[in-house]
Amino acid sequence: MIELKAGERLDDLQRNGCRIIQNEKLFCFGMDAVLLTAFTQEDLREGDNILDLCSGTGVIPILLDARCGGGHMFTALEINPVCVDMARRSIEYNGQQDRIRMIECDIRKAGEIIPPASFGTVTVNPPYMTGGHGLTGDNRDKMIARHEILCSLDDVVSAAAHALRPQGRMYMVHRPFRLADIFRSLNRYGLEPKRMRMVYSFADKEPNMVLIEAVRGGRPRIQCEKPLIIYEEPGVYTEEVRRLYG
Amino acid sequence: MIELKAGERLDDLQRNGCRIIQNEKLFCFGMDAVLLTAFTQEDLREGDNILDLCSGTGVIPILLDARCGGGHMFTALEINPVCVDMARRSIEYNGQQDRIRMIECDIRKAGEIIPPASFGTVTVNPPYMTGGHGLTGDNRDKMIARHEILCSLDDVVSAAAHALRPQGRMYMVHRPFRLADIFRSLNRYGLEPKRMRMVYSFADKEPNMVLIEAVRGGRPRIQCEKPLIIYEEPGVYTEEVRRLYG
Repeated sequence: MIELKAGERLDDLQRNGCRIIQNEKLFCFGMDAVLLTAFTQEDLREGDNILDLCSGTGVIPILLDARCGGGHMFTALEINPVCVDMARRSIEYNGQQDRIRMIECDIRKAGEIIPPASFGTVTVNPPYMTGGHGLTGDNRDKMIARHEILCSLDDVVSAAAHALRPQGRMYMVHRPFRLADIFRSLNRYGLEPKRMRMVYSFADKEPNMVLIEAVRGGRPRIQCEKPLIIYEEPGVYTEEVRRLYG
Repeated sequence: MIELKAGERLDDLQRNGCRIIQNEKLFCFGMDAVLLTAFTQEDLREGDNILDLCSGTGVIPILLDARCGGGHMFTALEINPVCVDMARRSIEYNGQQDRIRMIECDIRKAGEIIPPASFGTVTVNPPYMTGGHGLTGDNRDKMIARHEILCSLDDVVSAAAHALRPQGRMYMVHRPFRLADIFRSLNRYGLEPKRMRMVYSFADKEPNMVLIEAVRGGRPRIQCEKPLIIYEEPGVYTEEVRRLYG
């Protein structure tokens, strides 16, 4: 049994019976979270402890735990108490409470509660957009999830660099138009981009997402991977994406 | 009439009857030069004066001049006197000597002969590889063209930044595995990456080239373009590439 509050819905994650509570008025996870999970999962090591930043409703650790079969310990930070509450109830419903710890925390104060160099892996699906003008009561929560209002890219990367042990890895999904900002920020905090994959909706269109792996103290050399194409034709996923959705 | 020296051949550029002298023992231009020319040509402005660095046999200015119909003045720098000599004879043969000036010059001393902020556009197809071990007499010229022996990426970007006027544009073709180095170097010298296109041999393979446009003093926001795919199937160019070879 699960208690849903007003405006909430319970979505099936199609993975080990896992479900997630979401609220359309706040934020619902999208394909970016699914792609980041798959990109991260490729080289997770048994026993890695994983920190998820800007965790929202906890979709990244919930999905990763469901996919990886319980071999990792997750800590997730989220600033919005409403999201933290939804995430905790999802985690409880899925029986993941021994492996996923959800903490309400401003990422700019992560250093106060996360010991330095204490994680092997960091995941993050941060706000993509700069600026945050036109913030009103109605769309404030959505704006905070999408725009760099409560945390900048530097805040995110700085928190990741603080939490990672040397050679630890950060996985991020972001928008291609921010690529130069991302590389600049990673460089500033000693994280070296080591792997990148561009995500194109269609094979003949501009990329709309980019997946990046960076290594704390890594040596310069980045592996750019084959394109990830979402649609074969309108409404029809490519085989690779169909496999991700199981 | 044209005088060819031992080991040289005269190749047809398939554009306005232009030809180029090459020597396989030194370096022959490849698809990277053709793609850089097309990538640059897209937004050249009438009357732009163009500086080509690491010019080799002059293929970039020769091709750009042939494609753009004579509306630009080119200056090309090359350190290898044998290449400079070949380039000058090609330019003369093509009747481009009033528009393309070829200068023998170490790029690290470009500041001594190029006035600061004197060019609107810089093009460069630099050596791709780091290191230069195992340099022998036999392959020395090829190694210098391919490896960062006589100039580093920073030397190239520094020379470009010196030569460009504010808001001037640099166009570069390079290898994707150097992407983090490239962005770092551009950032160091005040050039902002504004446009990028990944080049994939096949739609399901890793990219093997990257085309980058950077603007001196530009604001951060990069436009990542649709993938450039070379082959439809082995030995068969895609329509886009067939058009480039016109």
